[in-house]
Amino acid sequence: MVFSVGRPIVFISDFGLDGVLVGICHGVIARISPEARVIDLTHGVPPQDIVRAALVLAEALPYVPDDSVLLAVVDPGVGTARRPVALEARTGQVMVGPDNGVLSLAADALGGAARAVEIASEAVVLPSASQTFHGRDVFAPAAAHVSAGTPLDRLGPAIDPSSLATVTAPGPEAVEGRLEAVVLGIDRFGNVELAARPEHLKGVGLDAAESLQVRTVWRAVRVRRVGTFGEVDEGALALLVDSRGWLAVVQNGGNAAKALRLETGNPVILELPG
Amino acid sequence: MVFSVGRPIVFISDFGLDGVLVGICHGVIARISPEARVIDLTHGVPPQDIVRAALVLAEALPYVPDDSVLLAVVDPGVGTARRPVALEARTGQVMVGPDNGVLSLAADALGGAARAVEIASEAVVLPSASQTFHGRDVFAPAAAHVSAGTPLDRLGPAIDPSSLATVTAPGPEAVEGRLEAVVLGIDRFGNVELAARPEHLKGVGLDAAESLQVRTVWRAVRVRRVGTFGEVDEGALALLVDSRGWLAVVQNGGNAAKALRLETGNPVILELPG
Amino acid sequence: MVFSVGRPIVFISDFGLDGVLVGICHGVIARISPEARVIDLTHGVPPQDIVRAALVLAEALPYVPDDSVLLAVVDPGVGTARRPVALEARTGQVMVGPDNGVLSLAADALGGAARAVEIASEAVVLPSASQTFHGRDVFAPAAAHVSAGTPLDRLGPAIDPSSLATVTAPGPEAVEGRLEAVVLGIDRFGNVELAARPEHLKGVGLDAAESLQVRTVWRAVRVRRVGTFGEVDEGALALLVDSRGWLAVVQNGGNAAKALRLETGNPVILELPG
Repeated sequence: MVFSVGRPIVFISDFGLDGVLVGICHGVIARISPEARVIDLTHGVPPQDIVRAALVLAEALPYVPDDSVLLAVVDPGVGTARRPVALEARTGQVMVGPDNGVLSLAADALGGAARAVEIASEAVVLPSASQTFHGRDVFAPAAAHVSAGTPLDRLGPAIDPSSLATVTAPGPEAVEGRLEAVVLGIDRFGNVELAARPEHLKGVGLDAAESLQVRTVWRAVRVRRVGTFGEVDEGALALLVDSRGWLAVVQNGGNAAKALRLETGNPVILELPG
Repeated sequence: MVFSVGRPIVFISDFGLDGVLVGICHGVIARISPEARVIDLTHGVPPQDIVRAALVLAEALPYVPDDSVLLAVVDPGVGTARRPVALEARTGQVMVGPDNGVLSLAADALGGAARAVEIASEAVVLPSASQTFHGRDVFAPAAAHVSAGTPLDRLGPAIDPSSLATVTAPGPEAVEGRLEAVVLGIDRFGNVELAARPEHLKGVGLDAAESLQVRTVWRAVRVRRVGTFGEVDEGALALLVDSRGWLAVVQNGGNAAKALRLETGNPVILELPG
Repeated sequence: MVFSVGRPIVFISDFGLDGVLVGICHGVIARISPEARVIDLTHGVPPQDIVRAALVLAEALPYVPDDSVLLAVVDPGVGTARRPVALEARTGQVMVGPDNGVLSLAADALGGAARAVEIASEAVVLPSASQTFHGRDVFAPAAAHVSAGTPLDRLGPAIDPSSLATVTAPGPEAVEGRLEAVVLGIDRFGNVELAARPEHLKGVGLDAAESLQVRTVWRAVRVRRVGTFGEVDEGALALLVDSRGWLAVVQNGGNAAKALRLETGNPVILELPG
């Protein structure tokens, strides 16, 4: 694939939007690649949650421009020996971020990294480079230079792609006839997203059940499996496959997380009604 | 009016900015209409508050580009029989969203819908179409295709504009000599916006009063009518016409909502001081 | 410096992102300068905190495009006699905002204002001009017109740059052997930013100390001076220079603000361990 200059930049971080961190990175990008569109995937990743960011980035791939430069800054190790890296997937996409696994699930989804470099060029890293804000001083400039047409090998020395850090995508444990999963997240509407997919239900023989029991540390409730909110009675809980492909407990006209007293990270068991 | 390709898209939703929903829709738009500017009107509409979104969208019309494509996704009925629609106003603007009334006040403000279609074309709707996230799979693609120059009738079959759902703009009740209104919203500064306009005061003969009594379930306070914050004494409450044209109770250097213990939806009575 | 049309606009305000204020200003800008990129520096300035906004804007200058038009709307005096102004720095940058000092630190950082005008032209100010939302009606249009190529003197009558309001950047008090500073802000990670810089430590002879005592109204703790998070033991507090150049108390893997029970504005003393 041949990419034009001014490639769009897809930006994800745990910076939040209250402060100035995201805005400063936008400014730095605009200085280097003035024509590039920046797509803020989200800056609401829970602070330092590398796995969540890795997952969100990988899931977003089908929905962002194919020539995007991916910029992921969730960086609890800023200022330590962890390397700042850029990698090129076999399909040509470039990803920029700390070498802590935040890029690994997206890279896997694209067939793996074909090449990688450590970002070190003095022509890229800002001279002011602080030891606490590599988003501004290292990663945003690197992504912007790639967007503006700089080849990967100008960012710094090549490194072995197989040396890049990886994370493991969350998933449930299958225990004869039931799934043990954690709550992956709770959205604004109170929908409870579980770290389990429909194929996991199949793996433990639960996929044909019309109803399942959702067991938390507090209680066990029977919920119907549905395809969409429209099939759920007002006020009833149900289990559906959400837009990201995860199983989710939802409540029509209510807040499932509140009803079940669930928070991110809590364990949940899916099993046949007792 | 003749519109060029890459028309700006004005995007309003109840998605919030903590999660990835807005970012994914931006990505989808960028894939289809790479040059289009996306103006995020707000994504802070209270969850599923169709009327609020309809009102905000209609009020924004004078302040967004005339060739904008309006994209409104407040969609409690996603996955039910409610139709995904696009409509063209008599003035040429196109609006995209669920057929639940969220577009109706903006359409009214532009003289009504001249044409409408149900969004159904396989060239528009994403093949992945989930039953829970039509923002990503149906509405964002439809708005982006219109932005990129696709004529309305390519989105799907024509429907009768008079069959489109509508909502009623909120307003006060006039009861001999007083207005009963609800709190429409409370902003970041604690200003209390009422669902009543100056002309409603006129309708009950209160427009000439220099002071009015604001009565809540908790208390009754006398407030002066002013034109601007600058006329309000430090710490005093006052009634002014806010930038959206609504009557609002404000406190200079304070938080009127806290002072009056008011929340969105609470009833308030405006009357002559007793 | 010669600037092309469609200059980028760097936008800072205390509007927050829950409501529609920021989105409306973006719409107004797009109507006037459709090609201009808008960089949202932040809209999370604490309500009416002019000094904070002034500081953030000045600090951002090295990280935004050199041809930016700066748009700052923190405007507690909207509707009073305070003037809406635009000024041009000696370096050519233009800044737009209320004359309350919010532009003053950025102007100082660029060598001061060479010229200034009061924004008053009927070709610029929206005819709807409200007395409560000059962001929409005065400042966004003015910034957009400058972005689109309108010369400064078309915005309104010239005013004396020396008559512009100023604010003083926050700093510590030096009291024989110790610094008394306030908490400038607390970020999403719980890092406590102090209104003091390394040179202030030097001024009271504390710059060579490897450890300092941080004294609050609640307690006194000894913290090590470090260059980066990577040098801090898990759970330990430390003092470093943050990415903005301020001294900050941080906790590795923890929330320093919670550990020290500190909030924005609280006093903190830095001194030699007792």
